[in-house]
Amino acid sequence: MDLRRIGEKGVIDKLRALAPHFHPEVVAGIGEDCGVIKIDESTLMLVTTDMLMEGVHFKLDMITPYQLGRRVLSVNLSDIAAMGGWPTYAFLSLGLTDSIAVDFLDEVIKGFHSVAKKYEVSLVGGDTISSPYSLVIGVVILGKSEAGKVVYRSGAQAGDIVCVTGFLGDAVAGLEMLNRNMDVPDIRDYLLKAHLDPAPQLEIGAALAKSGMIHAMIDVSDGIASDLWHICEESNVGAKLFKELIPISEPCKKLAHILKTTPLEWALKGGEDYKLLFTVPKKHKTELKDFLQGELGEKFFEVGEIVEGNSVWLINDQGEENISGKGFDHFAAEPGAKGAKV
Amino acid sequence: MDLRRIGEKGVIDKLRALAPHFHPEVVAGIGEDCGVIKIDESTLMLVTTDMLMEGVHFKLDMITPYQLGRRVLSVNLSDIAAMGGWPTYAFLSLGLTDSIAVDFLDEVIKGFHSVAKKYEVSLVGGDTISSPYSLVIGVVILGKSEAGKVVYRSGAQAGDIVCVTGFLGDAVAGLEMLNRNMDVPDIRDYLLKAHLDPAPQLEIGAALAKSGMIHAMIDVSDGIASDLWHICEESNVGAKLFKELIPISEPCKKLAHILKTTPLEWALKGGEDYKLLFTVPKKHKTELKDFLQGELGEKFFEVGEIVEGNSVWLINDQGEENISGKGFDHFAAEPGAKGAKV
Repeated sequence: MDLRRIGEKGVIDKLRALAPHFHPEVVAGIGEDCGVIKIDESTLMLVTTDMLMEGVHFKLDMITPYQLGRRVLSVNLSDIAAMGGWPTYAFLSLGLTDSIAVDFLDEVIKGFHSVAKKYEVSLVGGDTISSPYSLVIGVVILGKSEAGKVVYRSGAQAGDIVCVTGFLGDAVAGLEMLNRNMDVPDIRDYLLKAHLDPAPQLEIGAALAKSGMIHAMIDVSDGIASDLWHICEESNVGAKLFKELIPISEPCKKLAHILKTTPLEWALKGGEDYKLLFTVPKKHKTELKDFLQGELGEKFFEVGEIVEGNSVWLINDQGEENISGKGFDHFAAEPGAKGAKV
Repeated sequence: MDLRRIGEKGVIDKLRALAPHFHPEVVAGIGEDCGVIKIDESTLMLVTTDMLMEGVHFKLDMITPYQLGRRVLSVNLSDIAAMGGWPTYAFLSLGLTDSIAVDFLDEVIKGFHSVAKKYEVSLVGGDTISSPYSLVIGVVILGKSEAGKVVYRSGAQAGDIVCVTGFLGDAVAGLEMLNRNMDVPDIRDYLLKAHLDPAPQLEIGAALAKSGMIHAMIDVSDGIASDLWHICEESNVGAKLFKELIPISEPCKKLAHILKTTPLEWALKGGEDYKLLFTVPKKHKTELKDFLQGELGEKFFEVGEIVEGNSVWLINDQGEENISGKGFDHFAAEPGAKGAKV
């Protein structure tokens, strides 16, 4: 039987079923954005690891080595943001092919360093190997959080509203521009940055966690349809997404118009936007908006609600469509370009 | 300029030069087997990460998936052993190709679990992606140690004796048997196990650290010539290795005899034996032997001594040979099959 038969979730379930647990300090593990380990009564450690592969997660003719170095760290930091934590230490593993030049490596390291410096993340170690086929980059991030402040995928409750912290679809729009070698001057820089150099929303994630008001959170890495479903699976609930509420930027709409397509698919299934998707009880919505505005001058968009059940429904004028898990699945038959945090 | 010009050490030096340090809790980082982070006054956390790649670290026609699962965890645990720590948590990243079947994955996970269970290591998380060319496995281990008990590569002093905790060369001998599809019944199982299923020397490493007598330690993953040089580089010393003292097993000698070669090269440069190499002041040698015998019933072999300078010399009847760094270097012109812990 091949892996397509069981899909990513099947692989993850296998790991979870066999995952030995000998330590009561493990607060959360497989199924969340980070492993969560109790350090002492007031402190939790968050750990996340990701492997990024040339040809799967990035193409070297589309991203500069400096951008690549920034990106591999940023997307890992996003997993820490997704739980409301703050990063502290990083480990970098490099599987380098023969064609990698010293200048290239220098630029990757400089890019990595530029993000590490911004968030004061210490590079503590790593590993270098020779890779015969393609560049592979492994990143491990350790982070921390106050006990009781970590936000899990598993906390959503029926009646919560579903919110997202920024526009969706921009990263895929940027990728479309690159794939088509297009240049639309007034939207180019914005969309390419969304794809090549996404910023982890660490401050927003930490503020949302600090508020104590939100129930569940995840970062949008596989597309909101898929990531909201992850929340639903872990929380044992369903969700409704309202089509007209999905926030799409003007540049994204403009590119979709030029390409005679709709940006909705990009926003729903495109992924890699690295915005935060969270749920909050209705009664706290206004208070949370005021809080986030006051703390950071940031806002969020309400896009749906958590309901009983176990499916994600897209609500539009024509009715309801079940879009559960309609994002990238690497081991499913449909083509994908990413992986799954287990 | 290509990476062969700067070698593994050059890559590592680049990472080290740019490694940002914002946290005084980082006790040791790049250059050691593990990153070492202070948790509180009495506890240190050890972190190690390794990426293992099909075709580089293993060949799927030579190892069963169960053995592979055991091996990827064991060789990572060896880095914890090398600092005298004890492992606690593991993270597993899988880059899976289309040709990987569900049964294969089940066996890898079972093998991983069998080692995790033995040492009570909790699998806390990981990552699965699709890999276009080859199976890639990333492992992260967190471990712990009492403050003041961690042993570094950097502590060796001139006058120390150099010791190793077991036979060297067996792993390469096992690989030679596999490569030649040989079957010599009375030595086969022993040598194949040395290559396919090495045991991390966690108990011995912890006992050596607990003794408080040893100055420096590393695990023999690249070959004693290379790994002793790593100790020398980090400790700013040189070393002499006495050819006739290098411990070589009878099965290893027998295979070398059959193949009309000498086992010394296997022992010096072969690597992947995962024994522990350490230095101890002369005055503590007998006391340490008694201690290790009393604690675990284990012994060690004296193979050389630490001297002033910065080279590793092999001493034999014919004189001295400079063998500094004569192990695998992935980015050097000579063929290699492994990577470097940075």
